[in-house]
Amino acid sequence: MIRLVSFDVWNTLLDINPMLDSMAMELGDLLGVCPVDAMEGITLAREMIKGMRARGEGNPRRPLEESQELLAGLFGAGVEAVRRAAARAVLGVGSEAVIPGAEETLAELKGRGLIVTATGNVMFWPGSYTRLLLERFGLMRYIDETFFADEVQAFKPLPQIFMKPLKAFDVRPEEAIHVGDTLAEDFEGALRVGMWAVWINPEAEGVKRIDERGFEVPDIWAVLEVLDRVAGKPAQSSQ
Amino acid sequence: MIRLVSFDVWNTLLDINPMLDSMAMELGDLLGVCPVDAMEGITLAREMIKGMRARGEGNPRRPLEESQELLAGLFGAGVEAVRRAAARAVLGVGSEAVIPGAEETLAELKGRGLIVTATGNVMFWPGSYTRLLLERFGLMRYIDETFFADEVQAFKPLPQIFMKPLKAFDVRPEEAIHVGDTLAEDFEGALRVGMWAVWINPEAEGVKRIDERGFEVPDIWAVLEVLDRVAGKPAQSSQ
Repeated sequence: MIRLVSFDVWNTLLDINPMLDSMAMELGDLLGVCPVDAMEGITLAREMIKGMRARGEGNPRRPLEESQELLAGLFGAGVEAVRRAAARAVLGVGSEAVIPGAEETLAELKGRGLIVTATGNVMFWPGSYTRLLLERFGLMRYIDETFFADEVQAFKPLPQIFMKPLKAFDVRPEEAIHVGDTLAEDFEGALRVGMWAVWINPEAEGVKRIDERGFEVPDIWAVLEVLDRVAGKPAQSSQ
Repeated sequence: MIRLVSFDVWNTLLDINPMLDSMAMELGDLLGVCPVDAMEGITLAREMIKGMRARGEGNPRRPLEESQELLAGLFGAGVEAVRRAAARAVLGVGSEAVIPGAEETLAELKGRGLIVTATGNVMFWPGSYTRLLLERFGLMRYIDETFFADEVQAFKPLPQIFMKPLKAFDVRPEEAIHVGDTLAEDFEGALRVGMWAVWINPEAEGVKRIDERGFEVPDIWAVLEVLDRVAGKPAQSSQ
């Protein structure tokens, strides 16, 4: 029986694009480069860091600083500009960043008496900023505890970060399911520690079981259907 | 000649009381205790931590976590409640938190071509939140770089944290002055590394030289007078 549902944050509960757009504007402003060039740097830095993490490289003790230094380095700038751009972007981003269905899904899970946690990697801005946004957009009221890479000193897909919520709430891996949009960080990482996993892939057609404990789904709403399936209840919607 | 002016943040540029009041409300709400009891806990935790730091105790590698754990522990709670209360407090605090004269003084210093930095200890909330507030209130535009205890992994009065801005801008201690409200953390810490120091004591009557390189002043405006004195210019106002 599933007792705990763990969510990735960016592109699972919150759309990262408004935040990155805002950050590119602010970084461009602070560094005196055009926002398009700033966004190119941000995109390149993101790809490099995602690659490093998928390969298990990178320093788990300073995932935030590493990403800030990498981005700043692309512009020959100091990290303060990245930190300031992140602060300004947080001030500017609005509730359009909430993924449709995220609040309703979290509310439904809490209504079912489940433990709900968030487990997030960090890049360019600290987990504390993401918590601030979740709080501002009213999502924290449904989340029992957050586990951000810079605060727990491990990043997805490392097993340690997936084990944190399980230990905190005394839940066994097979009683927990992790939901996220990134195959290597979220889906494979969760399966590896014995949790159930849901990969949100907007291009998926309906809910599909793609591993003994893994599902591919098109959107966050489908998490409810996956839970019914795992519990052995008849499917209510697609398939 | 003074080339760099370093400022403490809380109770020097920003009034900490609105932030603590807001935090007590939010912590009380999250823990189900009355705000008065929450504030008592916050006050006690602050005294304990200030004492530890003045004695050079505490772990410089995790000054933030240590303070969050201490506060949470007083209520038998987990740190997540403290983190959430801090996030909500940041969302709630307004520009009434800016100390009168702070913006004008920073602007005047930048106008004189000086390097301006902020060097802040952290307690309960990360330096990133303080940077966010400085950005929101328009003070970051006058600050060349910030050095927060959780980001540089040292807290005042340890020499390392005072040396950070000097190294970053290639400035000798005798070319720099640190301004702050706390005698042990700010004034004594700065003097110990050979910097000039200004102690803002609201009960002081006028500008008073209390050490070879140290001044006691009643408010932030007086920093301008101190700089004139150090430069050997005739005093323009009090004394």
